[in-house]
Amino acid sequence: MATNTLQGVFSPVVTPFDEDWNPDAKRWIAHCRWLLSRDCGLAVFGTNSEANSLSLGERRSLLDAAFEAGLDRKRMMPGTGACAIPDAVELTRAAVDGGCPGVLMLPPFYYKGVSDDGLFAFYDTLIQRVGDTRLRIYLYHIPQVAQVPITLGLIERLLKAYPDTVAGVKDSSGDFTNTKSMIDAFDHFDVFAGSEAFLLDTLRAGGAGCISATANINPSAIHALYANWEGEDADARQADVTAFRQAVAVHPMIPALKAAIGLATDDDGWDRVRPPLVALDADAKAGLNATLKRYDFEMPGRLAFT
Amino acid sequence: MATNTLQGVFSPVVTPFDEDWNPDAKRWIAHCRWLLSRDCGLAVFGTNSEANSLSLGERRSLLDAAFEAGLDRKRMMPGTGACAIPDAVELTRAAVDGGCPGVLMLPPFYYKGVSDDGLFAFYDTLIQRVGDTRLRIYLYHIPQVAQVPITLGLIERLLKAYPDTVAGVKDSSGDFTNTKSMIDAFDHFDVFAGSEAFLLDTLRAGGAGCISATANINPSAIHALYANWEGEDADARQADVTAFRQAVAVHPMIPALKAAIGLATDDDGWDRVRPPLVALDADAKAGLNATLKRYDFEMPGRLAFT
Repeated sequence: MATNTLQGVFSPVVTPFDEDWNPDAKRWIAHCRWLLSRDCGLAVFGTNSEANSLSLGERRSLLDAAFEAGLDRKRMMPGTGACAIPDAVELTRAAVDGGCPGVLMLPPFYYKGVSDDGLFAFYDTLIQRVGDTRLRIYLYHIPQVAQVPITLGLIERLLKAYPDTVAGVKDSSGDFTNTKSMIDAFDHFDVFAGSEAFLLDTLRAGGAGCISATANINPSAIHALYANWEGEDADARQADVTAFRQAVAVHPMIPALKAAIGLATDDDGWDRVRPPLVALDADAKAGLNATLKRYDFEMPGRLAFT
Repeated sequence: MATNTLQGVFSPVVTPFDEDWNPDAKRWIAHCRWLLSRDCGLAVFGTNSEANSLSLGERRSLLDAAFEAGLDRKRMMPGTGACAIPDAVELTRAAVDGGCPGVLMLPPFYYKGVSDDGLFAFYDTLIQRVGDTRLRIYLYHIPQVAQVPITLGLIERLLKAYPDTVAGVKDSSGDFTNTKSMIDAFDHFDVFAGSEAFLLDTLRAGGAGCISATANINPSAIHALYANWEGEDADARQADVTAFRQAVAVHPMIPALKAAIGLATDDDGWDRVRPPLVALDADAKAGLNATLKRYDFEMPGRLAFT
């Protein structure tokens, strides 16, 4: 079972850009507030946040903006991984100093075929350099993107060395067998599914929740599943959120999330993505809009499409 | 045939670290000088340089150190690619302003399966933002590491849009058929092999040279092959440098290059690599030392192992 303070449903918050393609803190804070109001935690700077398309300075500025806006830091799990240890240390320190109870940490993802010895050394060095007993790390396993996996053996070594610091994992492999192995193998280690499609299975197996792209646009229903996972209607709730996710996922996920928020808030400034991603074209956006209307979901700025 | 000023043999200069694992400009400049004295150009901040394990600030500081040391800027092709466009723009501007005649540009490498439209937009945005007619870009195709390829179709689009800016490519695919396709497909486009093992084939096909890891420790022989590629002994020279490369490549390349320089200069401070890479262990280093003695190659600090 979950042993740390961060539990439940988190969204890798998408990052809006202004007309000059700079991060737009105003739109971003508004979206963060809406997510928090829907009981959704803020896993800012994730894969779906285009975090690696942002400079370190841009990520630090957004984090400062979140703190200054008074967002609930206790519900924040910023992504602070980077290929370069100095970058990961700097952003992790900023998150810890700001009062975030955990950070989500990608492995270094440029070199492929690296050893668990090398990955252990990466996290070991990072933890030593941050040098803060408040630090809680959630490891980020997303092998289809990072191409560098977080293995059970690596987790075991890290937990042995840093039992109070290594707090859990996000498993975005899409392989629930792997998620369950992570839950079963370790005590005092919180496992988050990388998709709400596995939320009920994850909770029934003893996991902590999910951190999911589509929580950006469907947080209430996903949280309701989390809050009622032991109820009679849990399987029906699971089927509903999974169906919605699958309907959105016919499009490239990140542009679709942004377009959906834009459609719901009548603000097509939300459509912008940074290269190498590409915004949805008009046909795809129309198709997405039809999907959203069909599911009639709760969105920022209005309660439902009408 | 080569049409730009950067031709011949280049080394992705390995980056030494001091006792605190910070980039060691003093050792680095010394190695750069030695390479230049052996007719080897400086492709600093490449894959073998652990460039993506350095912060942007660390790369800028080293570049400044190279300029301040008076290294020949006309023989420098810094790697300036990054996942985040602002980072790539900043480092590219620094290289262009410093007088480097070209930069080697990785594609953004976090997201996988991205479209050529998205990669075109990345390079297009970068070129527009650098906004300098002096800019010359060499595209960096290293699909086994970046997992994001530079396709012939992408090159064609970039050359059409920016014929004076897109100057060439480094093909590290290890597939000479692909290298030859790149040479044959485009005029006024300089193709560098990613390994000296393909140098003679590349030059005979009309390519511009090579940018190779092992040029860090075998520059003279590789340059002699480049300078005498039309000579009767070219095939024998090719066989020699290929054999040496293969002997080194039984070890992980980057730690082996650093250990070799350390052995040749009696300075085991050179052994340090940043995680996730791992230094050679004692047995591997002894094996490497035996290999180097067998090949009796020219190294910094002495002419040969004796």
